[in-house]
Amino acid sequence: MNYEQFFTDKIAELKAEGRYRVFADIQRQAGKFPTAYVHKDDTVKEITVWCSNDYMGMGQNPDAIKAMQDVAAGYGVGAGGTRNISGTMHEHVLLEAELADLHQTESALLFQSGWIANMTTLSTVGAMIPGCIIVSDSKNHNSMIEGIRHSRAEKHLFRHNDLEDLENVLKSIDPARPKMIAFESVYSMDGDISPIKEICDLADKYGAMTFLDEVHAVGLYGTRGAGVAERDGVMDRITIIQGTLAKAFGVIGGYIAGSQSMCDFVRSYGTGFIFSSSMPPAVAAAARANVNHLKNHNELRERHQERAATLKQRFRDAGIPVMDSVSHIVPVLVGDAVLCKQASDDLMERHNIYVQPINYPTVERGKERLRFTPTPHHTDAHFDHLIEAIKEVWGRLGLKDAA
Amino acid sequence: MNYEQFFTDKIAELKAEGRYRVFADIQRQAGKFPTAYVHKDDTVKEITVWCSNDYMGMGQNPDAIKAMQDVAAGYGVGAGGTRNISGTMHEHVLLEAELADLHQTESALLFQSGWIANMTTLSTVGAMIPGCIIVSDSKNHNSMIEGIRHSRAEKHLFRHNDLEDLENVLKSIDPARPKMIAFESVYSMDGDISPIKEICDLADKYGAMTFLDEVHAVGLYGTRGAGVAERDGVMDRITIIQGTLAKAFGVIGGYIAGSQSMCDFVRSYGTGFIFSSSMPPAVAAAARANVNHLKNHNELRERHQERAATLKQRFRDAGIPVMDSVSHIVPVLVGDAVLCKQASDDLMERHNIYVQPINYPTVERGKERLRFTPTPHHTDAHFDHLIEAIKEVWGRLGLKDAA
Repeated sequence: MNYEQFFTDKIAELKAEGRYRVFADIQRQAGKFPTAYVHKDDTVKEITVWCSNDYMGMGQNPDAIKAMQDVAAGYGVGAGGTRNISGTMHEHVLLEAELADLHQTESALLFQSGWIANMTTLSTVGAMIPGCIIVSDSKNHNSMIEGIRHSRAEKHLFRHNDLEDLENVLKSIDPARPKMIAFESVYSMDGDISPIKEICDLADKYGAMTFLDEVHAVGLYGTRGAGVAERDGVMDRITIIQGTLAKAFGVIGGYIAGSQSMCDFVRSYGTGFIFSSSMPPAVAAAARANVNHLKNHNELRERHQERAATLKQRFRDAGIPVMDSVSHIVPVLVGDAVLCKQASDDLMERHNIYVQPINYPTVERGKERLRFTPTPHHTDAHFDHLIEAIKEVWGRLGLKDAA
Repeated sequence: MNYEQFFTDKIAELKAEGRYRVFADIQRQAGKFPTAYVHKDDTVKEITVWCSNDYMGMGQNPDAIKAMQDVAAGYGVGAGGTRNISGTMHEHVLLEAELADLHQTESALLFQSGWIANMTTLSTVGAMIPGCIIVSDSKNHNSMIEGIRHSRAEKHLFRHNDLEDLENVLKSIDPARPKMIAFESVYSMDGDISPIKEICDLADKYGAMTFLDEVHAVGLYGTRGAGVAERDGVMDRITIIQGTLAKAFGVIGGYIAGSQSMCDFVRSYGTGFIFSSSMPPAVAAAARANVNHLKNHNELRERHQERAATLKQRFRDAGIPVMDSVSHIVPVLVGDAVLCKQASDDLMERHNIYVQPINYPTVERGKERLRFTPTPHHTDAHFDHLIEAIKEVWGRLGLKDAA
């Protein structure tokens, strides 16, 4: 077989479908977020970033920058090993304690990324509990799907956020079988939020444990930023809370929080945890600074929600087809892969506005969209500029208006 | 089912077997490596680290520290997204170019860790090439095993570093089937090195592609530090080279290097790449500084090899059962999980020497060991202290001498 030809052909397929991904080459500017530079063809220009998952702009928090610099000076730039073999740094211990405090759990466990946290935790729990069945929301993130698949546990899907269908699935399972309901709080592409309390009620009724991915909610919901489960007063009902340090907390890394035994179990058996070098202590220190900051600054969350609500209203007023969303995520429907990329390219080329096209497989075909994530740092002037630009692009490309 | 009880019971099993892992809580000290602090029960003491995978002490390279600090100041502490959605930083682009230059390949692709690089690349290639068979060395690292397993491709094992067995396996496979030989250069627990050239010869003869994990070799072998394949003059014969930034390069992150099409294929289809936030630009900058430094400082590799050879000789002279190793890794056999942990604890408690016990499942039962990794920063005085200490512990615990 000609392997090189195989790789080339698979790339050609993506290009033919109009969904070959070109990465924008960004240079962030601490202190000026959401303004950044983009590099292209040896030129550099200034743009406004409208699609960052640094939802609060905490990547430029001066306390986090200082923490990273100070710990780099004190410890150096790396940990030097897996957690077991010389790679547990005191900064990891402190960050895990901070996260357990955030979620009011006995313990927390760090991973290099949210993707590994989901992959490792779901695959380890699903594989090791004999006969375990995982009941999974149909719109769960790829990292959860991959973790469940890797566990080889029996999997049952329920319709997205549909309590009746979830109960039907749970009813259909032998009551003696161990089971876990795996779901998210905020679904990141549509911006809808799951009924956590009601799902916990069903978990109790049918003897299931719960795995809740709060990746797009930690730092953003609840009075201390522990997520939607905190906002809804049900944090203590979740068996395994999973979160990230890469979005609202502005750095990198994933984690789980829960009981001492559960975390110790994943720590001791999860191969994606055991066999992986640990994050640099300077990264842990920056993340801890941001977790702590957002714990104590609820006014940033209020401002964030106001900005998202205002942007949605501005889009509606302008006739732009903003999709339903009850969260901080503001998706605008295009419904075609090629046009979606064209709209994104035009906003960047003609208006210095950066919003990435979201195409299949991240969303279904026909649901291609531009996904805006306004932050507390996006001002009314940014909004004015965006609305004028998007109206121009919508008109020129003949894109669908709001129904 | 009582899930909490299940987790507790599984932890109790590990404790009963003497292989429950207790992480040493380390505070590295940049500028004083291999000296560090260890935190325990609210006290702190100074120790010498003997088991770091920061093989060259590059975690404290002043240029890398400065790069991390400067880029944190300039960009902030995070990337803010996946590579596709606002998370490609100019520092990633520069680092990928540096790695492609290191390996003299057309392209390179970054991941958050070596574990994800292996998991994603092997699972994506194995799953997507129709009918692909993966021929895997029996001692491959967990991350390779998990990636192969996740691909669900047909897998054939060959006996560790055994060319005759490899050829028998290749012969037994339908010549029309696509196939990949997956192996490592330096095996990290035994310190042996694979016959890369001969494996490439077999790959050519039987029409297989090659996947080579150089995680424990990059930075350490070859005149520019590209690994054993560079040392052996066969770098251009490897289809996919996989490496890490977390060991000799002293920071965190994994990567693959190879043809433009292959890297673009994994970039475009690998879910562990697509759906994962990218590394902080400050981390990429620190890694690039270290890759570049080691590319230009072959004398560090010479010193490193001298230190490892000297330590092996010192152990042999002292009657300590150092295992066969042709690399920089210096394993000492204990052969019992409980005694191995006891020896490690005694070295730490009585002699301020930190070397982690290596027990099952990282190595086979009966092959429990202390694994020393002398660096260019371990002096003769450090050696003297270690030899005296280990003789004391060996004698007191009645451990086996060299045969």
